[in-house]
Amino acid sequence: MVMKVYGSMISTATLRVLVCLAEKDIDFELIHVDLASGEHKKPHLLSINPFGQIPAVEDGDFKLIESRAIMQYIERTYVKQGTDLISKEPKKAAEQSVWMEVESQKFEPATTRLVWELCMKRLLFGEKENQAVVKVKEEALGNLLDVYEGRLTENKYLGGDSFSMADLYHVPVIKFLMGTQTKKVFDARPHVSAWITDILSRPSCLKVFCRSANQLGA
Amino acid sequence: MVMKVYGSMISTATLRVLVCLAEKDIDFELIHVDLASGEHKKPHLLSINPFGQIPAVEDGDFKLIESRAIMQYIERTYVKQGTDLISKEPKKAAEQSVWMEVESQKFEPATTRLVWELCMKRLLFGEKENQAVVKVKEEALGNLLDVYEGRLTENKYLGGDSFSMADLYHVPVIKFLMGTQTKKVFDARPHVSAWITDILSRPSCLKVFCRSANQLGA
Repeated sequence: MVMKVYGSMISTATLRVLVCLAEKDIDFELIHVDLASGEHKKPHLLSINPFGQIPAVEDGDFKLIESRAIMQYIERTYVKQGTDLISKEPKKAAEQSVWMEVESQKFEPATTRLVWELCMKRLLFGEKENQAVVKVKEEALGNLLDVYEGRLTENKYLGGDSFSMADLYHVPVIKFLMGTQTKKVFDARPHVSAWITDILSRPSCLKVFCRSANQLGA
Repeated sequence: MVMKVYGSMISTATLRVLVCLAEKDIDFELIHVDLASGEHKKPHLLSINPFGQIPAVEDGDFKLIESRAIMQYIERTYVKQGTDLISKEPKKAAEQSVWMEVESQKFEPATTRLVWELCMKRLLFGEKENQAVVKVKEEALGNLLDVYEGRLTENKYLGGDSFSMADLYHVPVIKFLMGTQTKKVFDARPHVSAWITDILSRPSCLKVFCRSANQLGA
């Protein structure tokens, strides 16, 4: 029985898990959750995720929530399959952990509102973005990316010399924002820009985002 | 040479690392960083942490940042010493990971402003809290803790039947807020309250917070 993923192709957290499954070459069944009608707050989904969010995963009778925890479970369970996403060497793993935490503590909070303003408002409610908010958030994102630029000047990937979970955590938000005016904030930093071209052209990303584009009617 | 921890006893992120070091029974040297004078933004510390934050760690010539990444490094490096904080069994580790992510994605954002209003403003600037903000934040924290109450009704600890990194991540913020009016929000939920009594009475917490109280002149 394949893993069931409850999620939506417009949810960056769902897409994060799907790109991970593609990197590990694992079959799954995607069960669509309609965010617009609030399906994630209905009893069946609340019984899997009491926080009323997606994604949620069922692997046999084992239930799991939180996209990043799901990805770590996939890596630990299928450790010898597909891409090696977390090093077995404590110091290398630590460098990857640092940038997984930077994504979670800094990149995600810096981009959540931009994704909302520039992608979700239009997609879900047909509303236009608030440009004043976008300007402030893009400036803060630029400051954060200055540190990324330093890191990526010295390392090909965030976690070191090979692609890892740290890069993977960033993929869906970057993919969404590269289709908006915020692209210029990433493009202004050459090593960040080269890193983005590299990670978004991985077969896992092409596979997931092709499916995403098809489902969104793009 | 013992591990050097650059930090402050009024920083919950620093204290998180110190409680972890105590659980793993590891010696360290604490190098005090004066937050009030902005020492964390000075060149020496920026060379260790380009984000200008504490804690930062030097283990020999290996530099590490982000409190949660530091703790995972400590657990991986000293895996056979002190308390076992992350299970070797993938499903148990996954349950712990879920609640480590819940802390990082939900508990920390829900409590940051409360810690600021009720602890830091007075301590750093001698200012009084904004009660209107506190009220809104306490209500949101209460809703989050309702899910914790459900979890802790069925499990003694967040990650399952034994104390783990998931509980440890929560310790310093809870310790700070239990000394404020927000204590009532935790106390109103019996299983949350029993869990707090349990984790705050661990020898690691008593050791670190005794030191903290001494340094703060309490």
